[in-house]
Amino acid sequence: MEFLECLFCENKYPLDVFNTFCPKCKEPLLYSYSPKKRKFFEEKTNSLYKFLDFLPLSNVNPYLLLGEENTPLIRLSRLMEKYGLPSVFAKNDTLNPTGSFKDKGTAVSVQKAVSLGVERIGSVSTGNMASSTAAYGAKAKLKVFVLMKEDVTREKLLSAGIYGSFLVRVKGDYGELGHKSFSIGRKFKIYFMNSVDPFRIEGYKMTGFEIFLQLDNKAPQYIFVPVSAGGHLIGLIRAYKDLKEQGKIRNMPTFVGVQAQGCSPLAKAFSSGKQRVERENHVKTIAQSISNPDPPGGNLVLKLIRENGGKIISVDDKDILEARKSLAELEGIFCLPASATTLAGLWKLSEKVKFNSEDRIVLVITGTGLKGMKSLESSVLKSHEATLSNLEKTIGSLIDE
Amino acid sequence: MEFLECLFCENKYPLDVFNTFCPKCKEPLLYSYSPKKRKFFEEKTNSLYKFLDFLPLSNVNPYLLLGEENTPLIRLSRLMEKYGLPSVFAKNDTLNPTGSFKDKGTAVSVQKAVSLGVERIGSVSTGNMASSTAAYGAKAKLKVFVLMKEDVTREKLLSAGIYGSFLVRVKGDYGELGHKSFSIGRKFKIYFMNSVDPFRIEGYKMTGFEIFLQLDNKAPQYIFVPVSAGGHLIGLIRAYKDLKEQGKIRNMPTFVGVQAQGCSPLAKAFSSGKQRVERENHVKTIAQSISNPDPPGGNLVLKLIRENGGKIISVDDKDILEARKSLAELEGIFCLPASATTLAGLWKLSEKVKFNSEDRIVLVITGTGLKGMKSLESSVLKSHEATLSNLEKTIGSLIDE
Repeated sequence: MEFLECLFCENKYPLDVFNTFCPKCKEPLLYSYSPKKRKFFEEKTNSLYKFLDFLPLSNVNPYLLLGEENTPLIRLSRLMEKYGLPSVFAKNDTLNPTGSFKDKGTAVSVQKAVSLGVERIGSVSTGNMASSTAAYGAKAKLKVFVLMKEDVTREKLLSAGIYGSFLVRVKGDYGELGHKSFSIGRKFKIYFMNSVDPFRIEGYKMTGFEIFLQLDNKAPQYIFVPVSAGGHLIGLIRAYKDLKEQGKIRNMPTFVGVQAQGCSPLAKAFSSGKQRVERENHVKTIAQSISNPDPPGGNLVLKLIRENGGKIISVDDKDILEARKSLAELEGIFCLPASATTLAGLWKLSEKVKFNSEDRIVLVITGTGLKGMKSLESSVLKSHEATLSNLEKTIGSLIDE
Repeated sequence: MEFLECLFCENKYPLDVFNTFCPKCKEPLLYSYSPKKRKFFEEKTNSLYKFLDFLPLSNVNPYLLLGEENTPLIRLSRLMEKYGLPSVFAKNDTLNPTGSFKDKGTAVSVQKAVSLGVERIGSVSTGNMASSTAAYGAKAKLKVFVLMKEDVTREKLLSAGIYGSFLVRVKGDYGELGHKSFSIGRKFKIYFMNSVDPFRIEGYKMTGFEIFLQLDNKAPQYIFVPVSAGGHLIGLIRAYKDLKEQGKIRNMPTFVGVQAQGCSPLAKAFSSGKQRVERENHVKTIAQSISNPDPPGGNLVLKLIRENGGKIISVDDKDILEARKSLAELEGIFCLPASATTLAGLWKLSEKVKFNSEDRIVLVITGTGLKGMKSLESSVLKSHEATLSNLEKTIGSLIDE
């Protein structure tokens, strides 16, 4: 028998993928494990096999996999030099199967769905989660329902539609749509694996474990991660709690959740010492994929980040864009504005905190820039014109620029 | 002392990255290795380290890496079932650092550039190669010159411009621009690592080696790969020639190069038994990234594919689009039209060739669909509209569709 638990009232409930919030506290339920000694299967290349002992699955169904292998951990040497920082790494989770960290969560939720005989899945999303759920659902031969905002761009519709999902554009409040999806899911047996789905969160632990192994079985001192609904950060914290419980690490990393100033309900609650998140009414930021004004996992994030000595900070759009530019121009990494909040957050924190020279800092780069070409539309782009006959001269004039 | 060699006149020339075509035959020169016993370093995760013994590098400079790890090899179970095929796999090279197979070549060319003290690199490209060269050049702190067609879209300009390259839009014949880049490169010491650059080609071998290891040290029976300038196919053939020479395999795979019918100079030359490729004058295909009417490595591809018992075929746009749709809807893989030629090619070949049930067939998926959203603009996309209050009814109506 499997259980989900509420970390607030500490009640346990029998596993039901159609009921993943505490009926009493209304907070997201998390998967409840029985204590046991767990180990990595490091000889495996696929992360689900490698970390199976830490996942809420009894086995891996190979027919549902899309290539969930190690994403690279890249030393950001040029940034370290330019800003006088200790070791900084990018965990490049843009190299997951559909281009974002969401795949690590979807992979696990879809495994669970199929093992439970669920035939329909869904997500409420306008971006990365939509295409991730659609792709995994296609591979698993499930019916996929993607609920999107009424005014979603054709490009975003396409990025889920290409996989053959049912796309529904919904007029009305987006937060309310999130709540509504669960009641509709119960009615029609559609498993909505939204942002703080308990299996999705367990899947995000894989990023944390991969980083640990890539740093030669050591925890980094800092992990910077963009925060929206909170599921990703919760998953990363749970990974390192697992590692500590298993005696693999002594100290937890300092988790730094980063929000965009234009939508920072968690950072505001954190800095004012509140236990509960308040909904933001005016949202304005270039970091669209983390602009959730009413994060469903917000209170749980606040609880976990305080219990583990982490922080939640916010950064402004100017710094986000500057950080994105630096990651591309110095390190060859092209990411979404949301992902660049991690570097902007590191810049901000480094004004206040004195890092040790041995510290190892990881920025989790969550989504590929190719999905956010629109956000570049207003940027200034310098290009030169030439004909075949004056090309040599044109290039000559640029050589010493 | 290192040498490049011409496979036509069999002459050798001292290595010079500014002179990579045979002065006599005008054909691309290839890297010339001294015979020795070579081995894989399988404990390494980065492919450059893993395959170093087979690459034209004496060591790997870790400061230039962007995460060149194993890309996944995914069994296409749903396609196999639907079309009654033996084992078919997708080698998902869209999960390279900038989203295309080009990275495997650029990674090696940039290593060589830096080891030789070259400070400026360039490419003539409008797509995948431009962003790959720009990203690796940024990480390596090199000046990068990207020469593009005059009418290139802003999106494509951006995908290289984001990394801080010099972008030059050139009016005039694109084929001529390719030739001209080399003379300009010699003058200004800009190493143009274009499609059939000898180091780029050696880098492409890594895809072949990865497939071999992923298939438990066995060669597949068939490898389908899109063909444009020819560098990629040449690299793959060279990988398996290496494996044969080293006694790791007995039989070469059958290489099937696939072109789009609307631009198929190599397929035409192959099917009519010609030794030399003729320039195409009218190009029209949705598979833009393989629409090179005058492939610089064409004659070399014809020679190698004949010597090794391979084929070059062409497929039409209708089948390319159908194949792209099938890869997404059945297997959760979203790729460029050019990449989908591989599945279209497999469909075509399976009408003529009887596969054995033990055959293992690999489709090399070369570029992410996220770079080709424009090609989807005309496709029909079905979406449904709802309000919060009639959402349940809307979804109810779709449930049994």
